[in-house]
Order: sequence, then C-alpha cells, then structure tokens
Amino acid sequence: MSAIRAVPNRAARAVNLLRTVQYTHPPSCPCHSNPGHHHHHQRDVVSKYAERAARPSQRRGYATPQDPSQLKEYAFEMAASSIRFGPGVTQEVGMDLKNMAAKRVCVVTDETVDKLDAMRQVREALAREGIDFKVFNKTKVEPKDYSIKEAIEWVKPYNPDAFLAVGGGSVIDTAKLMNLYNCYPEADFMDFVNAPLGKGRPIDRKLHPLIAIPTTAGTGSETTGTAIFDLASKRAKTGVAHRNLKPTLGICDPLNTRTMPSAVKASSGLDVLCHSLESWTAIPFNERTPRPTNPILRPAYQGANPISDIFSLNALRATVKYLPRSVKDPEDMEAQSQMLLAATLAGVGFGNAGVHLCHGMSYPISGQNPGYKHAGYEVSSPIIPHGVSVAVTAPSVFRFTAASNPDRHLAAAEAFGVDITNVKRESAGEVLAEALAKFLADLGDQPAGLKELGFGREHIDELVEGTIPQARVLMLAPGLAKELEAERDQLRRLFEDSLEH
Amino acid sequence: MSAIRAVPNRAARAVNLLRTVQYTHPPSCPCHSNPGHHHHHQRDVVSKYAERAARPSQRRGYATPQDPSQLKEYAFEMAASSIRFGPGVTQEVGMDLKNMAAKRVCVVTDETVDKLDAMRQVREALAREGIDFKVFNKTKVEPKDYSIKEAIEWVKPYNPDAFLAVGGGSVIDTAKLMNLYNCYPEADFMDFVNAPLGKGRPIDRKLHPLIAIPTTAGTGSETTGTAIFDLASKRAKTGVAHRNLKPTLGICDPLNTRTMPSAVKASSGLDVLCHSLESWTAIPFNERTPRPTNPILRPAYQGANPISDIFSLNALRATVKYLPRSVKDPEDMEAQSQMLLAATLAGVGFGNAGVHLCHGMSYPISGQNPGYKHAGYEVSSPIIPHGVSVAVTAPSVFRFTAASNPDRHLAAAEAFGVDITNVKRESAGEVLAEALAKFLADLGDQPAGLKELGFGREHIDELVEGTIPQARVLMLAPGLAKELEAERDQLRRLFEDSLEH
Repeated sequence: MSAIRAVPNRAARAVNLLRTVQYTHPPSCPCHSNPGHHHHHQRDVVSKYAERAARPSQRRGYATPQDPSQLKEYAFEMAASSIRFGPGVTQEVGMDLKNMAAKRVCVVTDETVDKLDAMRQVREALAREGIDFKVFNKTKVEPKDYSIKEAIEWVKPYNPDAFLAVGGGSVIDTAKLMNLYNCYPEADFMDFVNAPLGKGRPIDRKLHPLIAIPTTAGTGSETTGTAIFDLASKRAKTGVAHRNLKPTLGICDPLNTRTMPSAVKASSGLDVLCHSLESWTAIPFNERTPRPTNPILRPAYQGANPISDIFSLNALRATVKYLPRSVKDPEDMEAQSQMLLAATLAGVGFGNAGVHLCHGMSYPISGQNPGYKHAGYEVSSPIIPHGVSVAVTAPSVFRFTAASNPDRHLAAAEAFGVDITNVKRESAGEVLAEALAKFLADLGDQPAGLKELGFGREHIDELVEGTIPQARVLMLAPGLAKELEAERDQLRRLFEDSLEH
Repeated sequence: MSAIRAVPNRAARAVNLLRTVQYTHPPSCPCHSNPGHHHHHQRDVVSKYAERAARPSQRRGYATPQDPSQLKEYAFEMAASSIRFGPGVTQEVGMDLKNMAAKRVCVVTDETVDKLDAMRQVREALAREGIDFKVFNKTKVEPKDYSIKEAIEWVKPYNPDAFLAVGGGSVIDTAKLMNLYNCYPEADFMDFVNAPLGKGRPIDRKLHPLIAIPTTAGTGSETTGTAIFDLASKRAKTGVAHRNLKPTLGICDPLNTRTMPSAVKASSGLDVLCHSLESWTAIPFNERTPRPTNPILRPAYQGANPISDIFSLNALRATVKYLPRSVKDPEDMEAQSQMLLAATLAGVGFGNAGVHLCHGMSYPISGQNPGYKHAGYEVSSPIIPHGVSVAVTAPSVFRFTAASNPDRHLAAAEAFGVDITNVKRESAGEVLAEALAKFLADLGDQPAGLKELGFGREHIDELVEGTIPQARVLMLAPGLAKELEAERDQLRRLFEDSLEH
C-alpha cells in the first residue's frame, strides 16, 4: 500500500488534523452520555488520547523537557500468554516442552493436585517424551513469602531450563516466582515485590519458559504476569507484577477442573466475576499517572483499555450465565468448560487492566478472619476463600464506583439481565449493587455481608489499615481520594456498607 | 483452592460426568437454533468438544492407536503478539530494543515509508538509545519470492539480533521472512512455504525479536504469524504461516496511518472487513481435520474458535462504524485510530481462525488483472488493491456460506445495522449479501463486481485454477466440497455470481 502513498504536505496535513481533533473532542468525554457499551468506551478512550496527542508539548513525548510524572498515560499495552484450550489437551504438554528443547523441567504443584488425574496426565506426557523432570509438590495455598523462599531454595540445585505449574493460582504464582528468582540468583527477594512494600524492580531478563495448567476456574494466573503472596512480616498481601513474568503458554483443560467441589467452584467463580467487574470499571489507562519514562515501566495493571474491555465484558457475561449452572450441577460439563474459558478471558482482561477495591479490600478480610469457616471447605482451620472475601464487598464497591462512569455500571447491570432501558444514570450503582446481591444470594452459601463472616464495626479500622498498602490496585479505583485521610474515610464507609447487604 | 479438594471417587465421578455429557449434547448443535451471537457460538463449540471429549477412544487422544488423521480437532490455541497502542508511541521503540538487549537491528521498510514521519521517529528513537541499525528500504509492494530472497541475502552479512518492520503488510511480511531464514541459514526457501506448494515445515527454533510498526490500518500483520508473497513460478499467492513467526510486539501508532490517501484507507479497511467476516464464518476449529499429532503442527489458521470470535465480531462492528468516516473525512482522527485498532483486533481474530473464500479468490483476481487501475492510486501500472480484490466477491461468498451457519451470518448482517428480528434463517445469506453490497456502494469508488475490473466469463476458468492452490484457506471455507471437480464447480459459480452484484 505504502508505495503509492501521497508524500507531499505531510507535515502540514498532520498539524491540521491534530489541531482539528483538539477542538472537536472536548475533554469531558461525550461518550459517557451513551449507554456504556465497550464500543462507546473504545470511542471514548481513543478520542481522549487522540485529543491528548494533539497537544504539541505531549506529541513530543519523551523528547520533551516536561516532567513525565506530570503527564497522564497515552498508550496501553496488551500482553497475554498463549492459551490452548481443549478437553484432554493436558496430554500435549510433554511435546510442548520437547518443542521448547527443555532438558530439565521443574514441575510445580501441591500435595492434593499431585494425586489428581491432571498430574497423572502430566507425568505420563513428560515420560512419553523422555523429558527429565522433578516435581515440587510442597506449594502452600495462599502462599507466604517464606514458603515461596523455600520453593526458590528447593529449585536452585536442580537449575531447570523450564517450569511447568499444575494447580490453582497459588501453584502457578509460586512457579512464576521460582522461575523469576532462579533467573536472578543475586537479587534480593524484595527487589521485584510491588512498591510500596518492595522495590518494584522491572523484569528485564528473559525468564525460562513456564507452562501453566490451571486446575481451578478462577485466578486466570495462567495468562497474567502477576504473582500474589502474603508478606508475613507486614501481615499484607502483595506480590510481583510485570508482563515479563507471564507464562509462555496456558494449557486450559476442562477435564482438569471437574474435581473442584461445588463450594470451590462457587468461590473461584466469584473471583472471576470480580476480576471482570473490577477491570471493566477500573480507571481508563489514559487517566493513570505518571506516564512511564520507559515502556518496561508501564504497569501490567494499567487501567481499563479498549482491548481489556472486550475480554472483561465477555468474561462477565459468561460468568453470570454459567457460574450458577456449574455450581448447581457438577455434571454440567458445558458450564464448567465455559467457566474455565471465562476465567482465562477475565485473566487477560484484568491482567492488562488491573483490579481495584474488591481485591484490595479482600486481602485484610481473608487475613484478619475472626474465625469464619466457609461451608463446603473440608478444612480444620477457619477459612474465608479468596473469592468469597472478594465478592462480599462487591455490592458496596460498585455502588461507590458507579458515579465515576454510570454507563459502564449500567452495562454491567445489563450483563446480569437487568433491563436498563429506563434506569437513570444516577441509579446505576444502586441497580448494579442489587443485581450483585441477588446473584450472590441465588448462588447459595454466600455471606450476606461481613457480619456473617464474624466482623463487626470494631474490626473496621484494622481492615482499613490492612487495605491501605494495596496501593497498586487502589490507584486504579475510580473515585478514591488521593489524600490518605480522605481515602481512609472512604474505605471505612465501604467496609461499613459491606457489613450487611 | 486445591488443597481442600475432595479426592475420593474422582475417577468414578469423571466417568459419570463424561457419560452424561455424551448423552446430553446431541451432535447436531442445538445452539444453531438460537440467534448466532458469539456467546451462543461459544456454547456451541464448547458443548461440541465437551461431547467429543466424552468419547473414550478420543479421550485417550495421542495415547490411542486410532489414526489421528481420522480425528477432528479437539483444541484451539490463541497466540498473538503483544500490542502497544497509542498516538506517538513509535518513539518508545528504541527503548524497547534496548530493553531486549538488541545490539544490531535490521530496520525493514520501503522507499516511500522511509520518507515518512514514522521512519523519522524510528531513526530518532534508535539514535537516542545509541542502537546500531541498518535500514533495508527496498521492500516491494505485494512481494514476490525473488524480492524476498534478495532481502534475505541482503540481511545475511549484517547478521542482526533483532528486526524492526515499519510499513504496511508487505514490509512486515518481508521482515518476518528475513528473520525466519536468517535463523535457518541452511534451510531451502520452500521448506517453510505453505503446503501444497511448499513443504509447510513448522518453525521449531526461537527467532530473533521482531517489532512491527504498521503504517496502514489493514493487514493486521503486526499480530499474526503469517507472511504472504507471490510465488512467481507458480503465478500463485502463498506464504509461510506459523505462530512462531509472529512479531514479538506490534506498536500501533495512529499518527503513522494519517498519511494514507483515502483510496488506500478504503481498500485497507475492506481487507479488515473481510478478515473479520471470514474468520467469524470460517468452519469451527473442532470441525477441522486432521487432529495434529503434535501441538507444533496445529495451524495458526485453525478455524473459528471462542476467542477469535470475540476479536472478529468486535473488529467487524468497529469497521462498519468507522471505515466510512475515516474514508470520507481525512481529519477524523477518532475514526482513523479506531480503524487501526480494528485492523489489529481483526488480525488477532483471523490470525488464530483464518480466512477463506474472499481471500482465496482474491489472489488470482489481483494476479490476473486484465488492466484495471483503481481510482486514487497514483501508480503508472494497473492495480487491483488487495482490499478491493478481497471485497469484490464478498456478497457472493457470504450468500454461499450462509447455509453453513445462518445465525452467524445473521449476526454479521446485524453488525451492518440490519434489523434481523423477523429475518428467516434461510434468508441470512441474501440479507448479508445485500448489506455488504450497500456498504461497498456507500463507501464509494468500489467496483460493483468483477465486470468493472475488466473480467468476463472467459476469464473464470483461469480464476478458478488460480484459486485451487489456496488449499490452506479453502479448507476453512464452510460448505466447500472436498472433491476437486465439485469444488471447481462451486468456485466457478462464485466467480460468475461476482461478475455483478
């Protein structure tokens, strides 16, 4: 095409174009007066950054003397692991590792999954190709920094050239960190941990190939560059997040998620629900500051963008449709397959846009559990499953965030089957909150608020303090104050609202 | 999650599940009686492969003695380049190459783009980071095998460790092949070329990083593993297609596509339109045979799948909405940005699902041009732009393919703004064909059939013979006969139908 392009007057035309754009797109985005459908949003953000690009000072971008920390983001980057999806596809993994010329594979799992069909398939597949591998099956659920350090120490002497994670999010996240620190032997553990708790160093080396085989339909960790763990000393959830941490390939085999008890299906699915809702409603990428001075500093959690929107909204619709079916009927293979697909799609969505309040608030909720033991979880000690702790605040959270973008919240309510034709934009939050509360109630065995988890007003201050360190996700929360005391008040009100819904 | 999973009776439950699924999902997919929305389609394919997985013989997959060539596909793989999108983002590319530790970069472009702002930005960005690079600007539009071989010979002595393509599809495809054969110095050129013309050897080595910066909103080549060229000896379009050929990163900068003349915008956009329509209507991945015996043999063009569907349908809607605006108003920056995004989304869609008849038939149309020179193309010699040759058969093609999946074709018609509420499924093809013909007419300067390109009935046999070698895309065409003579007849009728619409 280009060879027949008109070259003359290029510069002049460009300037005209940009000047026109500047005046035809007012900063207050007109699209927010349309139903908040992601096409409109695409228009929204594209117009907005077209307009921003029109400002000469910013057109010069990195070349400009202007302080980038003063500039808002002007670009987004979409990165995802390759995803292979199919029933029985686990059996291909030996050939994949051979195709990658892997000689020594570290297989990461936990003691329960190690006994399941998924690991049997994996062992057979690797043996069939004559691949040398060692299995680490001591991964902890909700891993702590020290359990991850043990895993890292375990792997060092084996020095693998590829990793294979088989399990839920805890397993996949642990494998990511084993791979990371195995490739940075000299690094301090806190170097890559998210700021403010860690140094948030970017990953600038090529890690070894990592293949992830999820056995739950929840975290979407098989597609993301995020690894979450508890920093015991700080009693806070944190992690490492960089797109170079993402697996090479996610192998999604619906036959591997059949063994989840329905209580686990429900809480994993609620994690998917919040991944999609939070990434769909996160601040737009081009409202985020600062503009990175180097693309490697552009966070994976960059705010909602036109591509993450497509994934988030599709995952939301699929979850609303298939989660209740997969929880109620353990033999509904279609619903289970769809939930695994939804978990992965939501993973691509939030992996590139981020999550915000539900996840930020969930960490202290799970961590400061007053003694609640969730029904259907056959464990001795108290447990608030991650998905439960995330979903319990959802009605209050989206009632709060709706004002930032009523049309997106109306679109979300519509995904729950609400007829929004005559709903006022001011009611978007209320309508979505009701739809969420009803969805949770209909799903069954879900707490109708923090009270049912054993929390009272006396716990709220500590819950707020446990949320504050989640800066990385809180900065994506629309409408949350930048000033610390104001932010504390807002979080306090959100936790109070969440006592009962 | 996994640690509290119920282990007992696993096997027994699995068997029950699978048996149930087998009987609850009849092979004739119930979803095709619903409006062909991609959610329904997801349900459709997931059910179908759940059902297929339920057959014990196939459950054993590779372990089974059964001949895989007898088996249909049971999985799909979604792979795409990372995509960075933003106005002015070209200026980041020097830092990207430095972050990749690139020491010697081969910059591939053509003589026209070499004079444009995009290349100025690139030179500045690389110089700013002190990166050593050489520019190859001799890329030909619609490259031939010999022009690509010249490019490959040119690059050998420089032996770069990274590639950067700046231009349209011809440039990006040439850069992909320079990278490929530079990493396989001993390989014969035909080794990797698509069968039946070439040997279709899979790419089993890690190629050097390739960053692609598109300057047209059309091919989507910045996200795909496909490189197309003319095989002069055979007078046929062919290419290399493997997901390992895909760029590392596509940098989509709307400021780089402003310089397209509106005629180029139109034909590039029609390519996007057909990419999305063809991938949306291609046979489902799980109807494709044979099932690959090794995942590296799974084609990039694997048929429609639940993830490609999301991209294809979104790209179709965006193209219908923004292409006319971007063609009519050269200063409509929003429409131009949206078309660049749509081109990339469509690239991810067809890059993982494939294209079929419009593209298969377009190659002889462009190649056997009787002397047509498209309006707005400032060239001396006759030219049928790729997008024009693809779109000219679209009404006939989708009238023909509609019977294979009326609901998908109705959904496509709906994307063109047709109210399908009372349209009979038998009329899906007619309705979509009309919508397409009207869209082309409204766009302006588009031929209303092959006659206006100078083709007559006397040319049809040669056009058919020129289409037959496009086996890789024809195999994805729904409703096309497997038997050669029957296929010839169908193609003949399609070309006849396309003389006038």
